[in-house]
Amino acid sequence: MDTMQVQLGERSYPIYMGADNLNNAELLTRHIKSKQVLVVTNETIAPLYLMQVTTHLQNYQLEVVVLPDGEQYKTLATMETIFAALLSKQFSRNATIIALGGGVIGDISGFAAACYQRGVPFIQIPTTLLAQVDSSVGGKTGVNHALGKNMIGAFYQPQCVIIDVNVLQTLDDRQLAAGVAEVIKYGLIRSADFFAWIEANIESILARDQNALTYIVEQSCGHKAEIVASDERESGIRAILNLGHTFGHAIETGMGYGHYLHGEAVAIGTCQAADLSRRLGWLNDADVNRIVALFKKAGLPTEPPADLLAEGYINLMAVDKKNVDGDIRLILLKKIGEASLPVSVEKSVLLEALNNYGREN
Amino acid sequence: MDTMQVQLGERSYPIYMGADNLNNAELLTRHIKSKQVLVVTNETIAPLYLMQVTTHLQNYQLEVVVLPDGEQYKTLATMETIFAALLSKQFSRNATIIALGGGVIGDISGFAAACYQRGVPFIQIPTTLLAQVDSSVGGKTGVNHALGKNMIGAFYQPQCVIIDVNVLQTLDDRQLAAGVAEVIKYGLIRSADFFAWIEANIESILARDQNALTYIVEQSCGHKAEIVASDERESGIRAILNLGHTFGHAIETGMGYGHYLHGEAVAIGTCQAADLSRRLGWLNDADVNRIVALFKKAGLPTEPPADLLAEGYINLMAVDKKNVDGDIRLILLKKIGEASLPVSVEKSVLLEALNNYGREN
Repeated sequence: MDTMQVQLGERSYPIYMGADNLNNAELLTRHIKSKQVLVVTNETIAPLYLMQVTTHLQNYQLEVVVLPDGEQYKTLATMETIFAALLSKQFSRNATIIALGGGVIGDISGFAAACYQRGVPFIQIPTTLLAQVDSSVGGKTGVNHALGKNMIGAFYQPQCVIIDVNVLQTLDDRQLAAGVAEVIKYGLIRSADFFAWIEANIESILARDQNALTYIVEQSCGHKAEIVASDERESGIRAILNLGHTFGHAIETGMGYGHYLHGEAVAIGTCQAADLSRRLGWLNDADVNRIVALFKKAGLPTEPPADLLAEGYINLMAVDKKNVDGDIRLILLKKIGEASLPVSVEKSVLLEALNNYGREN
Repeated sequence: MDTMQVQLGERSYPIYMGADNLNNAELLTRHIKSKQVLVVTNETIAPLYLMQVTTHLQNYQLEVVVLPDGEQYKTLATMETIFAALLSKQFSRNATIIALGGGVIGDISGFAAACYQRGVPFIQIPTTLLAQVDSSVGGKTGVNHALGKNMIGAFYQPQCVIIDVNVLQTLDDRQLAAGVAEVIKYGLIRSADFFAWIEANIESILARDQNALTYIVEQSCGHKAEIVASDERESGIRAILNLGHTFGHAIETGMGYGHYLHGEAVAIGTCQAADLSRRLGWLNDADVNRIVALFKKAGLPTEPPADLLAEGYINLMAVDKKNVDGDIRLILLKKIGEASLPVSVEKSVLLEALNNYGREN
């Protein structure tokens, strides 16, 4: 087992990474401060891993909330289910909430923990590759609104993140690929070497080779932890983690939550960001082809949905946390391995890119 | 005009107190960082003071949300109205939310500001005495749940608090008295002199003498600011502000939000806390009589509702943010002018006090 610390002063916490961590009772219980524990999970994960976790919690006042599975349930209304469970059992301000699931479960449970009695401790046990390499680390929690993705939430750090790469063996192929999209992102924004490593090892990753999975989890969490430690509340550098996400969020909101997995929308969005970077002269054709080819090899979509038109994107992208006074700002690529800070892109340039994606300038 | 600073490091902010502050455009605009401004108010306040505020905001992209008036609307569902307004106008992360109203408007708008895009600036313009002396200062924001008062929220500090005592001239008598309940609380928990001053000047306060009102606002904000500065997130001393509130919240939740005003429930709850303090030998009969008499003079209720039985209280009090692992903890009085820290009270003692309120031991 490898342990990495997210350095955030009094809000610092460990990420435990390795195989078989779910069977390690002490790893979990050392971070629980009172006898009241609520596990939040979903219908897909509960039959697979809930008992493996709750078996460590027999000496606690244990409650479980099982939510339906899917991005479309990441709403304020679903939060009410969690609050009702906590209140009906008279859970106090030192109760612990454990998020056992993918990014949706982690985001919604973390936000519930941030808000319940103005803040109770929580623990992330991410069960998808995407949650393990990205959403469980860094304290971004929240829910979607019909008018915008992740628009309601809090920065709220967990007590710890417990990653067991063994759970990736039961993940379906589509979910695995969605996680690979965020892994590729780290290579693109920060490390050409890591990008090249993913290119060379994509088959091992997709074959769920334990060493390959452990390596990408450790590399990704390392990048994420470094970025978060230097800019917890995204006033600067942390924004580069949003490569592909402004396009991606527009796709998710525009097509309806749950139509694309988050990682799939990010894959398409990152190809669009690469295409736009090429139009600005920062990437060349060969770079863009490499990027698109790797997403394709990973089994991810790279073509924007035909029925989301350029004007639709513009309207949806106008609701984005990076924007300032209505100005659309994007993370683009200076080169493979280096992201730009948020760039204001003129509407005409953006419209042309959206209308001519993938075609020559 | 008097200015007081709430000392919270990088989250410090001024409280402006005085007459006619609502007509001071610069006081407001100096704290607005971008051109997007949303004013949240209610149906009672909008006809009285909305235009006085919005006249200062003609050069901004101004939106207004007018909510129904009452504690029963302090819910997550009402927050959706605010989020929809912000998102439909594509308000960004540097937009400012202004809360123009009483405690309900301040609490809900502040919580919306804490959550929208994980945090946007907000400004408190409290228009009730209760909001001016208590809820607008200190960063407690949140909404109620059917199973518990203020159970969902955030600690989130405003950019500033603008108090205009002139608005108290239009406040209805019941709302004015409700605010006086919290003013009396400061005397009880921190200053026997201030308590005696209120006793001596209650008629001037109720007659809305400007000097008397200004004095109680300044004294109360001073006490509140000092306590909050030393314990922002209520890990210790801040809990004394909850004198009477554990009983009071049980009454509010048990009788249905909106039945009693918050200050009315606090008045009854404080009398219950005083009665219990007497049973523990901390107060004598004369102390309790003085306390009850002052609340009565202020026009406040002091008798618990007949249809809320002792067992009902116990169940409702079991949901309280001061509790630890299901143990009920109360703020009581050591003497007039000095509160206790949270005290665990045995159920049998509490039941006897609830069943025999006001009668001899």
